[in-house]
Amino acid sequence: MRERKWTPRRARPPAAARPHRPGSWGRKRGAPVRAKPRDEDGPAILYGWHTVKAALKNPNRRILRLFATENAARRLAEDGLKLGAPPELVRPDAIAAQLPPDAVHQGLLAEAEPLPSLAIEDLPADGIVLALDQITDPHNVGAILRSAAAFAVAGIVITARHSPEATGVLAKAASGALEYVPIVEVGNLARALEGLRARGFMLVGLDSSGTADLSAASLAAPLAFVLGAEGKGLRQLTRTLCDQVARLDLPGAIKSLNVSNAAALALYIATARLRP
Amino acid sequence: MRERKWTPRRARPPAAARPHRPGSWGRKRGAPVRAKPRDEDGPAILYGWHTVKAALKNPNRRILRLFATENAARRLAEDGLKLGAPPELVRPDAIAAQLPPDAVHQGLLAEAEPLPSLAIEDLPADGIVLALDQITDPHNVGAILRSAAAFAVAGIVITARHSPEATGVLAKAASGALEYVPIVEVGNLARALEGLRARGFMLVGLDSSGTADLSAASLAAPLAFVLGAEGKGLRQLTRTLCDQVARLDLPGAIKSLNVSNAAALALYIATARLRP
Repeated sequence: MRERKWTPRRARPPAAARPHRPGSWGRKRGAPVRAKPRDEDGPAILYGWHTVKAALKNPNRRILRLFATENAARRLAEDGLKLGAPPELVRPDAIAAQLPPDAVHQGLLAEAEPLPSLAIEDLPADGIVLALDQITDPHNVGAILRSAAAFAVAGIVITARHSPEATGVLAKAASGALEYVPIVEVGNLARALEGLRARGFMLVGLDSSGTADLSAASLAAPLAFVLGAEGKGLRQLTRTLCDQVARLDLPGAIKSLNVSNAAALALYIATARLRP
Repeated sequence: MRERKWTPRRARPPAAARPHRPGSWGRKRGAPVRAKPRDEDGPAILYGWHTVKAALKNPNRRILRLFATENAARRLAEDGLKLGAPPELVRPDAIAAQLPPDAVHQGLLAEAEPLPSLAIEDLPADGIVLALDQITDPHNVGAILRSAAAFAVAGIVITARHSPEATGVLAKAASGALEYVPIVEVGNLARALEGLRARGFMLVGLDSSGTADLSAASLAAPLAFVLGAEGKGLRQLTRTLCDQVARLDLPGAIKSLNVSNAAALALYIATARLRP
């Protein structure tokens, strides 16, 4: 066997494509708003129609700059959205140049302040909460946020480390859900789960090695689903903190789903089961 | 309002990140295997443990070259997989340099012949089929393939145009499902749907403007779910060809799911309903 050497073809990816920056889910409440270089700890980059429109409608979201193509600006005006300032008109390729390859921006890009992170105690002790154990893919976390908003979850708990930024690809995949779903960023997931348990939450881990099929598991509200990282699943400590670990029985050749698909199924099953 | 000009920051994306190449789902059966430049009509790029391992186990998949890190090569050997030739040993960053930013390759990359596309008549007239109406995002199509394999669907119908390539990001998101799910690439989706109907399939479109909640819709096998593109939904002609168009009722602030999440839900609901 011989060792081959390849030459890297690409430079550093653009800011919006880069994963994980600890603490990116929001400044601490009360912390001063600081203008920082965008590549370090800068504003959230929001693009695409649903994502930017939801941000513009969110009174808690501070928009720093809004860029729009002429078409998109006209559409915003027709929609009757109240804007703090008129958008800065740009050409479509100028927006595309700021974004990952093939990003569907629909002529809109906003730079905005990250939303503040909540605390576990801020979440209402009813309904369903999702806890994400170091899920790293921004497409997956964004799609989970979107499903969470669609199923009206009470909140999402996310680890500060090993989670993607609440910006760019993630915000686009969330399709506006960042503005609707209360997010709790935690340094220590185990402590957060203990906090949820103390508030009466049933903790249900989801893992293909679970002991019972979720469709047959006994569930009660308030309920927290704990979802593990792609490939790795739940960490051992996370698993031992769960009241039960459930699996999704699948009849086919592949025995696990994409984590956002699994989250959507879990939310569907639990929402139907817990309906009053 | 003033016009701003930004300078594009990036060059052309790497091959594996590029979307859509008509006809990429497979050469016609019987057509000669041609060696072509990779950027044009070259081999499928498969990376990541599950994706490459499933390809190596698939007797119908012709592997052209296999690159592995020392660790991955050892793991392959421990797994007892029969390889046509030993892998070419490379460093992790040499694999990463061939892939989109942040691709999780786990030390494995294969160049392989695309699998042959089937015809509508090749699909068994039982169970569930998915028809994708110009779904463009490779993460979404990959996750749909993975869920399709997990729910043992009979096949997936995909349009030759406005679909991503069966390679790279899509193959990784499919997590090996490309090797398990029969795929029918069609030039004309309307004709394919008529072909399915002629073979007895009930055609159920999924769209947020559907007339009935899927959970309450009457379903019968063989069943084809027709899923529309992100944002656009089903095209008008596609919609009129469906026996019914169903929606997924969602209690939250966002009224539509990521298309792969919607597909997983539809497969779960139909699999439970059609169980003998």
